[in-house]
Amino acid sequence: MTPTDTLTDPLAQIPAGASAAADATARAEGLAALQAAFGPRLSRQAAVRAQHCHTVNWIPPEPPDAVICPRSTAEVARIVEICAAHRLPVIPFGAGSSLEGHVNAPRGGVCLSLREMDRILEISPADMSVVIQPGVTRSRLNEELRATGLFFPIDPGADATLGGMAATRASGTNAVRYGTMRDMVMGIEAVLPDGRVMRAGGAARKSSAGYDLTRLLVGSEGTLGILTELRLRLFGQPEAVAAGIAAFPDLESACNAVILTIQMGLPVARIELMDEMQIRACNAYSGLSLAERPTLVFEFHGSPAAVADEVAQFRALAEEMGATGVEHATDPDSRQRLWKARHDAHWANLALRPGARNMTTDVCVPISRLADCVARTQEDLRASGITATIVGHVGDGNFHVLPLFDPGDAAMLGRIKAFVHRLVDRAQAMGGTCTGEHGIGQEKRRYLEAETGAVALSAMAAIKRALDPHDIMNPGKILP
Amino acid sequence: MTPTDTLTDPLAQIPAGASAAADATARAEGLAALQAAFGPRLSRQAAVRAQHCHTVNWIPPEPPDAVICPRSTAEVARIVEICAAHRLPVIPFGAGSSLEGHVNAPRGGVCLSLREMDRILEISPADMSVVIQPGVTRSRLNEELRATGLFFPIDPGADATLGGMAATRASGTNAVRYGTMRDMVMGIEAVLPDGRVMRAGGAARKSSAGYDLTRLLVGSEGTLGILTELRLRLFGQPEAVAAGIAAFPDLESACNAVILTIQMGLPVARIELMDEMQIRACNAYSGLSLAERPTLVFEFHGSPAAVADEVAQFRALAEEMGATGVEHATDPDSRQRLWKARHDAHWANLALRPGARNMTTDVCVPISRLADCVARTQEDLRASGITATIVGHVGDGNFHVLPLFDPGDAAMLGRIKAFVHRLVDRAQAMGGTCTGEHGIGQEKRRYLEAETGAVALSAMAAIKRALDPHDIMNPGKILP
Repeated sequence: MTPTDTLTDPLAQIPAGASAAADATARAEGLAALQAAFGPRLSRQAAVRAQHCHTVNWIPPEPPDAVICPRSTAEVARIVEICAAHRLPVIPFGAGSSLEGHVNAPRGGVCLSLREMDRILEISPADMSVVIQPGVTRSRLNEELRATGLFFPIDPGADATLGGMAATRASGTNAVRYGTMRDMVMGIEAVLPDGRVMRAGGAARKSSAGYDLTRLLVGSEGTLGILTELRLRLFGQPEAVAAGIAAFPDLESACNAVILTIQMGLPVARIELMDEMQIRACNAYSGLSLAERPTLVFEFHGSPAAVADEVAQFRALAEEMGATGVEHATDPDSRQRLWKARHDAHWANLALRPGARNMTTDVCVPISRLADCVARTQEDLRASGITATIVGHVGDGNFHVLPLFDPGDAAMLGRIKAFVHRLVDRAQAMGGTCTGEHGIGQEKRRYLEAETGAVALSAMAAIKRALDPHDIMNPGKILP
Repeated sequence: MTPTDTLTDPLAQIPAGASAAADATARAEGLAALQAAFGPRLSRQAAVRAQHCHTVNWIPPEPPDAVICPRSTAEVARIVEICAAHRLPVIPFGAGSSLEGHVNAPRGGVCLSLREMDRILEISPADMSVVIQPGVTRSRLNEELRATGLFFPIDPGADATLGGMAATRASGTNAVRYGTMRDMVMGIEAVLPDGRVMRAGGAARKSSAGYDLTRLLVGSEGTLGILTELRLRLFGQPEAVAAGIAAFPDLESACNAVILTIQMGLPVARIELMDEMQIRACNAYSGLSLAERPTLVFEFHGSPAAVADEVAQFRALAEEMGATGVEHATDPDSRQRLWKARHDAHWANLALRPGARNMTTDVCVPISRLADCVARTQEDLRASGITATIVGHVGDGNFHVLPLFDPGDAAMLGRIKAFVHRLVDRAQAMGGTCTGEHGIGQEKRRYLEAETGAVALSAMAAIKRALDPHDIMNPGKILP
């Protein structure tokens, strides 16, 4: 790995707005053409534009020139056609909960907010799939599914839209058992950068028919097309759920318990790590009295007998690894209590320093390296004088660091950015990735070449040029 | 759907060898350059060439101009560079067990047999992954893994190479629980059509870092690059295995039992359908006395307690659907006996008509349509006077039809080809796919546009042109 202090930043060499190249006149003409087609539905108000750019992390907001809410695939196609003719950038927008600047408009252009495309088009209980428009949020989908006995398992924390979750290849706590958006999206409809409507995948559970365009669009962060329809896999609501918590003497034993769990094939549905600092924060915020040690919160789904057996097996191996205070429960109230610390982690983190904001970043490493990576990250935080908690989807080797900073403390923000560089270097040097589930967006572009190498990066760029020769689709994201 | 009798065949309009366009001189120069670089390791013997083209189905063999067995990624890269310079087609070859003409050389060129690249490079028990060269077969991998307590679950029937399985996005009986090659390949190394070596994916269980090049190469059938290294997911060997068999009054009740199983979240590891004709064939071939009815063979993997509970639940629901003679067992010998009919299905099918050959084809439909699709396919076979059995990976909606024909009976072969057209039309009209696990190869190219639409097909072609502008990588496969 390149040491951080000599890291050359590939982004520094790119002249601003180089490739979108919509000059001011063409841009104005494009906006006028959209206004002519959509009238007052194209909003150019400063307040609306400001709501449709990045606001979640410390990344500076870059508002689009205009915002429009299409109501159908045909409208998306019409908008993209006009934008393509005028080389006007197109930035798709879901709930705005992405973390790496995905919805910023560094080269201006039109934000397509998909919130009005929020219909559930078809629920197929026999095929265990659902067809939705991209603006449906995961929580609304699960509300609508409740009576069917089915559910959609991916939960990235925020109540994101499913279109946005697909575009960023989101996952979250349930991924260790159910998979990520990569695995959940069975088929798509997407508007390509020239305005044509493409369909890929479908209702069959598997297919060997040609290139996997579904998987290519999932995780492409709006740079190859706009998702206008998704077919998603569903699962049966588990008959029984058991949740539990266990404190470990150190990180290594907690991580080893997870590795053993997965090696034994125990089908754990969620297994989350909180570090000592996070437990301290949760005790203070949620009035708990948990031991301030690396802690796992876990959950099993299945038949009552299977779940009871699995919890017993997990308990035995956790205690063999030195776990103490292992508790579990199957009734909803007790489960809620056991998960409380994890659910409140974000707010507990913020409460560590009133008035501060937090900056969420994520990396993912092979599980065998997780304990080492987390321990070294904790040391790094201590040495850097940064207050941060760590929570992790530890079954996948994925963890989040949430450093706190006071708005306006530029020096601390600089220290945090340098820390993130080191964190990514550390994860990549261990065979891991600069992002397990947040995506590349604007801020992690600088790390992509170190991770995949120049050849893969040039293959990505070749695919981007082939499908979006004028670079109008969410320019300035993923690729340099 | 277009009725078969008016189906326009997009392939009929393509002049032979149009796009590879290696004229005879350039081709001879390319072969001479390879010979100069590799000496006698480049074989041009007719017998060797004949062994390295399609022989499994009825598809006529089209041998390459030469065959070479590279021993390293660097050698693959060197060969591809020479071929690229001379516009010489490159056809990767694993075990030669693919079914749709994938290894034919319709435009000549060099067959790269990867059999000497068969090293297992790294086994990571903690990360439950393995890094292999593409020539390792699945059975050898599992032999090598035996002592580790881990196994690789994908079993396509044939003892294929893992490189070939990745290239065709293979799956098989275990896919309902463990997934397909799409899900198993964590990372790849591949030689691109210009000879550069690309790496994608890696040892982390998930990543949101850029376009999913791993999934793009998996299933690309050697048309975008040659896989030279694979990192594969592994699973813990199940502590307990229960296998069983159940006969149903009709197809619909068998399929409904499967749908219910999956809706209930019972983690069935394998669930295979055999139709009445297949059971009749197996009774005759294997000396069994099974009821000649639609039959499911099933298997559960897990802890002894979980497996016992799951089998009991499955049995109850199968009997509710009218199943009779439900048997199950956990000891290896009895399990073997219960699976015997399914294991012998191919040979039992052939024994239905001594001297005949069979022609295996596959489609995959949404599970809700499976009973209907299989029933209508049986009617079609009867009406067409074709003798065939049906076996299916019914948990995925994927089934195989194995029509028998006497070599030399051109009329019957014509009837079988027309039947396959109707089968694919039927599956596609039900929202299914022309191939669940065999791939497109040469023979199913004619069905791809009807399935994905013209826009997706043109996106595939754009990606192909972007990565392989001279169309040297396995030309004449997947795309028209």
